[in-house]
Amino acid sequence: MRMRKKKNLDVRFERCASVMVSDPRAVRGKWREKFGNDNPIRLEIGCGKGRFILETARRNPDINFVAIEKEEGALIMATEKAIAEELPNLRFLSFDAAALNEIFAPGEVSLIYLNFSDPWPPNRQRKRRLTWRAFLAVYDEILEEEGAIFFKTDNQRLFEWSLGELCQNGWLLQNISLDLHKSDYDNIMTEYEEKFSAQGYRIYRVEARKRIEKNLLK
Amino acid sequence: MRMRKKKNLDVRFERCASVMVSDPRAVRGKWREKFGNDNPIRLEIGCGKGRFILETARRNPDINFVAIEKEEGALIMATEKAIAEELPNLRFLSFDAAALNEIFAPGEVSLIYLNFSDPWPPNRQRKRRLTWRAFLAVYDEILEEEGAIFFKTDNQRLFEWSLGELCQNGWLLQNISLDLHKSDYDNIMTEYEEKFSAQGYRIYRVEARKRIEKNLLK
Ligand SMILES: C[S@@+](CC[C@H](N)C(=O)[O-])C[C@H]1O[C@@H](n2cnc3c(N)ncnc32)[C@H](O)[C@@H]1O
Ligand SMILES: C[S@@+](CC[C@H](N)C(=O)[O-])C[C@H]1O[C@@H](n2cnc3c(N)ncnc32)[C@H](O)[C@@H]1O
Repeated sequence: MRMRKKKNLDVRFERCASVMVSDPRAVRGKWREKFGNDNPIRLEIGCGKGRFILETARRNPDINFVAIEKEEGALIMATEKAIAEELPNLRFLSFDAAALNEIFAPGEVSLIYLNFSDPWPPNRQRKRRLTWRAFLAVYDEILEEEGAIFFKTDNQRLFEWSLGELCQNGWLLQNISLDLHKSDYDNIMTEYEEKFSAQGYRIYRVEARKRIEKNLLK
Repeated sequence: MRMRKKKNLDVRFERCASVMVSDPRAVRGKWREKFGNDNPIRLEIGCGKGRFILETARRNPDINFVAIEKEEGALIMATEKAIAEELPNLRFLSFDAAALNEIFAPGEVSLIYLNFSDPWPPNRQRKRRLTWRAFLAVYDEILEEEGAIFFKTDNQRLFEWSLGELCQNGWLLQNISLDLHKSDYDNIMTEYEEKFSAQGYRIYRVEARKRIEKNLLK
């Protein structure tokens, strides 16, 4: 059963080959070549069904986007949505965030989106949270000097904890919003966001920048 | 009229002399002598009508408390409440937070409470916010190495801004709560807190610690 499901997924992914990257390790340090231009590269980690990154890529043709997702069952929904349009500035891959430095060279990424990086694992599993210090160290490595993480979630406890973790690990917190949908931020909703905000949950958001002298002086 | 009011206040303050400090500059560096013991000294800035600091002092006889307030009309309500008990570990004074380093020597204070440091002045008046960087620099000066600021407010925008300001100025954010009254924190309410939480506003809270190596390693 499991094997048949997997085989079925493989067939579906084959049809999506043109919006995917099959050998990301080979592209390390050469993403600009891959996209065929010098535009900045932004990364979404855990893109789920892909709604956010598709709309973001549509609105920003002069920026390149890479979306990773470790659950193939979610990723296939994203790539099947994307295949109809084949946006030249958007590529997907099945990958785990922990090893991002194997597919991006230092400074190759300009911005990282973390959207609804749930579920909130119990405390002994905090190492799985995408804002855990080991992940932050990887982001720091692949982000350019002026790089940033844009993080949003409906999960209050995850957000409280993440602000502390980001600050403690040397990231600057900027443009914090404790009720995003009531702010004037030009927001693009994700699938999870739509679901949980409809249930009345607040959405929290923060931009975290690398702590370089220039930012400190702003 | 104004003079009569002021005279009337003076008379009332005279009756509260035993819970007040009249010459705080003379006590600089000698607060432990003043309290007659070696207990840590905590400071509340903008104590308003004093409910929070009175209850906190009652519950913690082994800690000394100093409460400052620049509005005499509010301070008199606090001191008149305090005079009935004359707690040996609590003193009030009429003072502006901006000059705290004139009455405390470096490292003389162990903890600073900022409660509902409102109103939120418009952006051009951000220098009046008690979490503005110039105030933080003063707190940094008078706080001991392990010192911290405990800040709570119902004001969402003030809190969002303050988290960024604290982080950017080198303070570590810890134990953030985005809905204090639903957390398990053993909270003592202030007058403002009672009023605004009754109106349905959430209370936000953060502990900010000086960024010393030891804290970073925790
Ligand atoms: C709650 S979902 C949110 C999906 C989408 N961002 C949204 O907002 O609708 C979180 C996603 O993050 C993915 N994820 C979690 N940890 C990951 C990791 N280490 N690497 C890649 N993806 C991860 C999960 O597989 C899941 O699809
Ligand atoms: C909104 S009230 C809150 C009072 C009390 N903490 C409470 O929660 O009920 C803020 C208080 O801070 C005081 N305050 C503001 N700036 C101050 C400063 N620079 N020095 C001393 N007190 C200040 C104001 O006078 C006011 O009484």
